[in-house]
Amino acid sequence: MSKQHTLAIGLDGIAVAETDLSLVDGINGLLVYRGHWARDLAIHHTFEEVAHLLWFGHLSSAEELADLSSKLKANRELPEHVKGILKLIPADVDMMSVLRTGVSALGSSVNGWPPTIDEVISLAAKMPTIVAYRFACLEGHEPLEPNPELDHTANYLYMLKGEKPNPAHVRALDAYLILTQEHGMNASTFAGRVVSSTESDLISSITAAIGTLKGPLHGGAPSEVTEMIEAIGTKENAEPWLRNKLDNGGRLMGFGHRVYKTVDPRATALRVVASQLSANDPWFDLATHVEKVGLKLLEEYKPGRKLNTNVEFFAAAVMRAVGLDDDLFTPTFAVSRVVGWSAHVLEQAGKNRIIRPQSNYIGTMPE
Amino acid sequence: MSKQHTLAIGLDGIAVAETDLSLVDGINGLLVYRGHWARDLAIHHTFEEVAHLLWFGHLSSAEELADLSSKLKANRELPEHVKGILKLIPADVDMMSVLRTGVSALGSSVNGWPPTIDEVISLAAKMPTIVAYRFACLEGHEPLEPNPELDHTANYLYMLKGEKPNPAHVRALDAYLILTQEHGMNASTFAGRVVSSTESDLISSITAAIGTLKGPLHGGAPSEVTEMIEAIGTKENAEPWLRNKLDNGGRLMGFGHRVYKTVDPRATALRVVASQLSANDPWFDLATHVEKVGLKLLEEYKPGRKLNTNVEFFAAAVMRAVGLDDDLFTPTFAVSRVVGWSAHVLEQAGKNRIIRPQSNYIGTMPE
Repeated sequence: MSKQHTLAIGLDGIAVAETDLSLVDGINGLLVYRGHWARDLAIHHTFEEVAHLLWFGHLSSAEELADLSSKLKANRELPEHVKGILKLIPADVDMMSVLRTGVSALGSSVNGWPPTIDEVISLAAKMPTIVAYRFACLEGHEPLEPNPELDHTANYLYMLKGEKPNPAHVRALDAYLILTQEHGMNASTFAGRVVSSTESDLISSITAAIGTLKGPLHGGAPSEVTEMIEAIGTKENAEPWLRNKLDNGGRLMGFGHRVYKTVDPRATALRVVASQLSANDPWFDLATHVEKVGLKLLEEYKPGRKLNTNVEFFAAAVMRAVGLDDDLFTPTFAVSRVVGWSAHVLEQAGKNRIIRPQSNYIGTMPE
Repeated sequence: MSKQHTLAIGLDGIAVAETDLSLVDGINGLLVYRGHWARDLAIHHTFEEVAHLLWFGHLSSAEELADLSSKLKANRELPEHVKGILKLIPADVDMMSVLRTGVSALGSSVNGWPPTIDEVISLAAKMPTIVAYRFACLEGHEPLEPNPELDHTANYLYMLKGEKPNPAHVRALDAYLILTQEHGMNASTFAGRVVSSTESDLISSITAAIGTLKGPLHGGAPSEVTEMIEAIGTKENAEPWLRNKLDNGGRLMGFGHRVYKTVDPRATALRVVASQLSANDPWFDLATHVEKVGLKLLEEYKPGRKLNTNVEFFAAAVMRAVGLDDDLFTPTFAVSRVVGWSAHVLEQAGKNRIIRPQSNYIGTMPE
């Protein structure tokens, strides 16, 4: 009989790192990024400011912000070979596979160990360009070059939509991206840290994280929310449609979360942003109405279960309001989460140790 | 104060899976693949037979072997877009980065969940072609198409060297590849399982595993062994060179292993294969002499430490004897290890559960 180790399939409740980056407290509905409420950051700060917080450990001074912003702008363009690769990948390949390949293709012998903050900035700057470049190819448009007059989120929307974006849309998307930059030790962040722990390079880590986020148990399926709201169609139809769903034992999409047993703090922040936008956007207006009715009915049908709106509900609402396809949901998630992934890689490099668990052999022994 | 979880950085001694695939017993120097000694498999079986064992759970019948062999042969060719991508990547990009990108580029919406054995066979068949195709591009040769008359290992050598390989070389390389197909829950295998646990696809898992193996704490540095043997140069010089190294407090490369505290069973098997080959190969002859002297001196200089030859020593010897560059060492390791990686992905898919550990937040709380 071989030695048997303590078995912890799934690793529930086991901490694999001490981190300064974020606290995810599902019991109390709290999300903290380096000493700040993520909710407040999303409402009062920008993508660049929060990325600075996660990467450098403090909110940026005006000078630091200008420096980071200009470095991000200077690194947005893709190397020619990566553009060529994005064009070569067949049209029926999904965007997450394309993003995984495009990021991997950024790797070179320049990327080594330990990862550097300049590598991190360069990668975070290029990921939106990869998604937008590929999207333009698929749509049959000539891809737009990044616009250095625009900040990170505005430029992403600009490259995707082909026109300077509505500032209210930029604000809503910016808030969403901030709220998804970081979220503790989820599966993709963990995969990135496992890769990095062998002293592999940043590109290898982020490629792994993208591949992990691609899985539906992690990256989610926001299209189910947009499909639900589309099927409802009008405010008047919300209550009868949702009642019919619940009467037939169906689940309401966008309510309830595996981690958050009370309100999802990201949803709270996005509701604020959404309410500012809904006056200008009929779809957002409908979504906030569906939320209100959904919460009322869940309390009626499943009293005490505390099923609150989750971030996916508002993510779907934001993505739809700013005019991004469902296909872009998970890639856009990756465009923001790369900030947290890379912050974890930097943090781990500071005190690295190989992550190398065991397995228990339950097969037969040779005679 | 936020909830603190049990901290297990590195996950030492924690089993994350029950597996039928292999037993790695470092205390007793044992390596078992599904009920068979890996040592015996390497000496008496072929790459395809052992891959069949790991993928299907039993050694193949003649009919099963013919079927697997023909499927592997039928899947060796690369899609045109992958060839194009391998040509686009700049020449100074290292082979592990190229392999990561090439494998990622094989992904498509056809690859989904759960992974299938046909996807596994297709990928394992194509990985040698990716390495050889890129190698030919770098060498300035027209890449050779796979040769369906040759088995897996012989075809890999053929594509790399451009000529039908010496059967003794094929046998030695085959034994090495068999011995590295699988090795319990190492970091790359674990990364692949974390990716897969979100119900992501096989390509995402193997891309992550390649990126993990790329790290020098995992993929190793066999060039240190070849450099040492080259520096020694002649049998006569072995003892004075090694004594000088040890007198100056240096480490002998290729001796001692983190896991195996006694003989590395892979080294034992490779020594058998090497001894059959050494009569025909002066370099192999030198390497086996260096081993003998090295072991004698380690016993003299570090008595009781039981520093045995590790697999890297013989891996370097085999790779060098069959004429493969040091740059091809880790990619060749990946070409064999994909068998174990994919067997783990298939095993996990049979009873999947998301791998999602925790982290402990040690930063400040907002005021």
